[in-house]
Amino acid sequence: MSKILKKFEPLFYPRSIALIGASQTPPKWGFGISFSIVTGGFRGNFYPINLREKEILGFKAYPSVTDVPDEIDLAIITLPPARVIDALRDCKKKRVKAAVVITAGYSEVGPEEKKLEEELIREIRKTNMVVIGPNCMGLMSLDINLNAFFSPATLPAGPLSLVTQSGNVGGSLTFFPELYNIGFNKIVSSGNEAAVFCEDIIEYFGEDPGTKVILAYIEGVDNGRRFFEVAKKVTRSKPIVVLKGGKTEAGEKACSSHTGALAGSDAIFDAACRQTGVIRAGDLDEMFLIAATFIGQPLPAGNRVGIITRGGGWGVLAADACASQGLDVVTLPDEVIREINEFLPSRWSHGNPVDLAAGGGEEGMLKCMEILIKSPRIDSLLQLGVGYGVLRKRMAKSAQGFPQYREMAKMVLKDAARKDRKHADTVLKLSSKYNKPIISYSPFSLSEKTSSTPVVRAFSKAGRIIYPTPLQAARALTFLVEYSRYLKESREVAK
Amino acid sequence: MSKILKKFEPLFYPRSIALIGASQTPPKWGFGISFSIVTGGFRGNFYPINLREKEILGFKAYPSVTDVPDEIDLAIITLPPARVIDALRDCKKKRVKAAVVITAGYSEVGPEEKKLEEELIREIRKTNMVVIGPNCMGLMSLDINLNAFFSPATLPAGPLSLVTQSGNVGGSLTFFPELYNIGFNKIVSSGNEAAVFCEDIIEYFGEDPGTKVILAYIEGVDNGRRFFEVAKKVTRSKPIVVLKGGKTEAGEKACSSHTGALAGSDAIFDAACRQTGVIRAGDLDEMFLIAATFIGQPLPAGNRVGIITRGGGWGVLAADACASQGLDVVTLPDEVIREINEFLPSRWSHGNPVDLAAGGGEEGMLKCMEILIKSPRIDSLLQLGVGYGVLRKRMAKSAQGFPQYREMAKMVLKDAARKDRKHADTVLKLSSKYNKPIISYSPFSLSEKTSSTPVVRAFSKAGRIIYPTPLQAARALTFLVEYSRYLKESREVAK
Repeated sequence: MSKILKKFEPLFYPRSIALIGASQTPPKWGFGISFSIVTGGFRGNFYPINLREKEILGFKAYPSVTDVPDEIDLAIITLPPARVIDALRDCKKKRVKAAVVITAGYSEVGPEEKKLEEELIREIRKTNMVVIGPNCMGLMSLDINLNAFFSPATLPAGPLSLVTQSGNVGGSLTFFPELYNIGFNKIVSSGNEAAVFCEDIIEYFGEDPGTKVILAYIEGVDNGRRFFEVAKKVTRSKPIVVLKGGKTEAGEKACSSHTGALAGSDAIFDAACRQTGVIRAGDLDEMFLIAATFIGQPLPAGNRVGIITRGGGWGVLAADACASQGLDVVTLPDEVIREINEFLPSRWSHGNPVDLAAGGGEEGMLKCMEILIKSPRIDSLLQLGVGYGVLRKRMAKSAQGFPQYREMAKMVLKDAARKDRKHADTVLKLSSKYNKPIISYSPFSLSEKTSSTPVVRAFSKAGRIIYPTPLQAARALTFLVEYSRYLKESREVAK
Repeated sequence: MSKILKKFEPLFYPRSIALIGASQTPPKWGFGISFSIVTGGFRGNFYPINLREKEILGFKAYPSVTDVPDEIDLAIITLPPARVIDALRDCKKKRVKAAVVITAGYSEVGPEEKKLEEELIREIRKTNMVVIGPNCMGLMSLDINLNAFFSPATLPAGPLSLVTQSGNVGGSLTFFPELYNIGFNKIVSSGNEAAVFCEDIIEYFGEDPGTKVILAYIEGVDNGRRFFEVAKKVTRSKPIVVLKGGKTEAGEKACSSHTGALAGSDAIFDAACRQTGVIRAGDLDEMFLIAATFIGQPLPAGNRVGIITRGGGWGVLAADACASQGLDVVTLPDEVIREINEFLPSRWSHGNPVDLAAGGGEEGMLKCMEILIKSPRIDSLLQLGVGYGVLRKRMAKSAQGFPQYREMAKMVLKDAARKDRKHADTVLKLSSKYNKPIISYSPFSLSEKTSSTPVVRAFSKAGRIIYPTPLQAARALTFLVEYSRYLKESREVAK
């Protein structure tokens, strides 16, 4: 195990946790975190620490961490600021290996409280502990069912890991896995970063086998040089998707009263991102969508995109989106046109986007996809209108009040499910056979959640999502292209 | 009733419909439309027309529209192109008042087929019928439960009306009402616009009492002057939100093979939109969100926005979003700061965004909102973090496997519901008392659908939505501000 993995092991894979400040009373933090840990199904030992209570949420409570008759890997502290230093001293005495200081009321408040944080930093330095916070919302490590985050939730585990300088932004992001069937591996709210900085966590995620893609919400970095050195190292093997707060003067002012961060020049940050392969998202949903895109898709060799669509308007919107994002909506090679002509009715669009104009049926769609993706002049495919299942489900729902149509609706649904399974299968096979990304749009992406249709189920299993608009699909593809180009260029420089 | 309302009456409020080309066989258009009409619960008479069948979906079928023993207001034609002209002649004979030609295979295919469309136009001119299409996907008029669209769906009715030059784009938009609890009143797919142009329909929507906001997906307009004359007239009383396909060369090429439209210069289109108060959306979801925003919100007097947030990071993202959209994140007036200081713990942000930093509880949030919105130096409020209900529901869900916490989870849930009701109530009252918009963000917007929490229920009733990201909330507010400014300026010009 590397030094970095070892250092963060007690934080993300603790065998035992003490919650100093545990409470029975909602909505106190000491209650919320207890409840999250207990109901989250944490696989290790849990010890609530409380001066007065005998028991919290069914677990025996101890007056001090030093009273616990077990080794403690991780202490989580939710006490008021005045009592935090003492708690840390107890942790040191107990040889606790890592701590998360949830407590707020430090540098984010004002100069008086900043002194308190400086005192905290001095105290942390006297220990060997890895200390997260203060002013943070906790962490999740879903490999071991650890949810020590304020918001209780039974989230599906996955390969995304997030470090966030805002706990609330982290909370917001926990709502996306349910929509897109791609989950988090680890989430950590880094707060004021008194001792552990977001780049330290990014560095750890870079080596962590459970993390495939890294997300970071950042308001400011103290040591920009180190941040981007770490980023440059990590992006060689894993994409980093950053959402940056404080891009404008108004946002920067808000940062300084939030985490006390100095956001710095956005142009400089942006340039540094480009030089180190860091991907910048424009909004919360985009951050999640981009990160999720890297899970199930191979990287494209270039920016030449083929578009195939069930509907003309979708094709138009996607072509606009691709072109305005700098992708090359290639002119269809002659042999592609010839091959498609062989079996599609003549009314197809004869261009890129390939609009089948309802010709060729399901088989036609799949055949066209292979003709496009196997072309050496096309690097990736944008597919608009994946799956029939949802429209057929709407039909079945409409038939509910009409007993005489139920049998028919059932048959239609069955037929759609069969087609959808074959469709999903083919998409995944083609993508892997030619090692090119296929990005799929469907209008039902957001209204149909977790595994409700065969297409969604099959895609989810392969770590793929279905994009909710043609523009979002094109944007996602753009980031795949850019990251791929960055990797190629940085390898050439390294030669 | 005005001339325009009268003209479109048989199209959108038919008492009887004949479907020429009705079929028993999925997935034929003649089946799909029949199924939509029948299961949609159309309140008038439905007559399937088919040469061979005696009955379709339980309704007596007739060999020709001329055989129907009833007046026909609306004929929908799904026959192959070669038989459409004859069908139109029958309709003329029968004195049918309006028709929708679903049939494709006209100018969108090529020059040969364009001749067929010209013939169709000549035939239409010989009648007095209002004829939509060809190459379209039908229409919905939900006031009378009429769904004559290919996709069967029982959609909630609402105040939005859509004209779309792409049926598929129309279909995509039908998935949003379920997500945001704002429904459509009318949807019409205008297809190749042989006789009725999108601007004709926009003009009708402008006078239609059921329509409050107009959405249009447009690839090209034949008569730009008339389009923008109509738009200018209509935007005086109703917002028009346009999504334009064919902004780029790649998109324009796609348009010409889709509807045969010449997209024209995007810069010119854009300038004309600005001059006539037409709002341009950037994507499908944005189109719906903007349109929905106009339903429940008063127009702001200016661009000065106050931001109030439950979480620092949200405030930062919103401040960035507002500032980059040209909104003024105002410096808080001294009296506002003084008033807030009176009851909030000193750790609040003392600036805009007002970050309560968990101070003041629910009451504090509501009190701050009034202090902000009543200020004469603030035109609108962006509120980040509306409602507790969903977090509490997560908690209750987490407690499911633990019988000992169920009672507690129930109490927490009840308390949250009470707070949420009060919260929603206060937001709606404040907005109406000061006649200023309050735009609300919540991370659960997309994962919690239809009326699942008290806040969503109360907001829905008032025609308000909860935005899924701080940026989307800020974008929506920007469009309110811009439309409001346009109206003010155009009124001043008119003086």
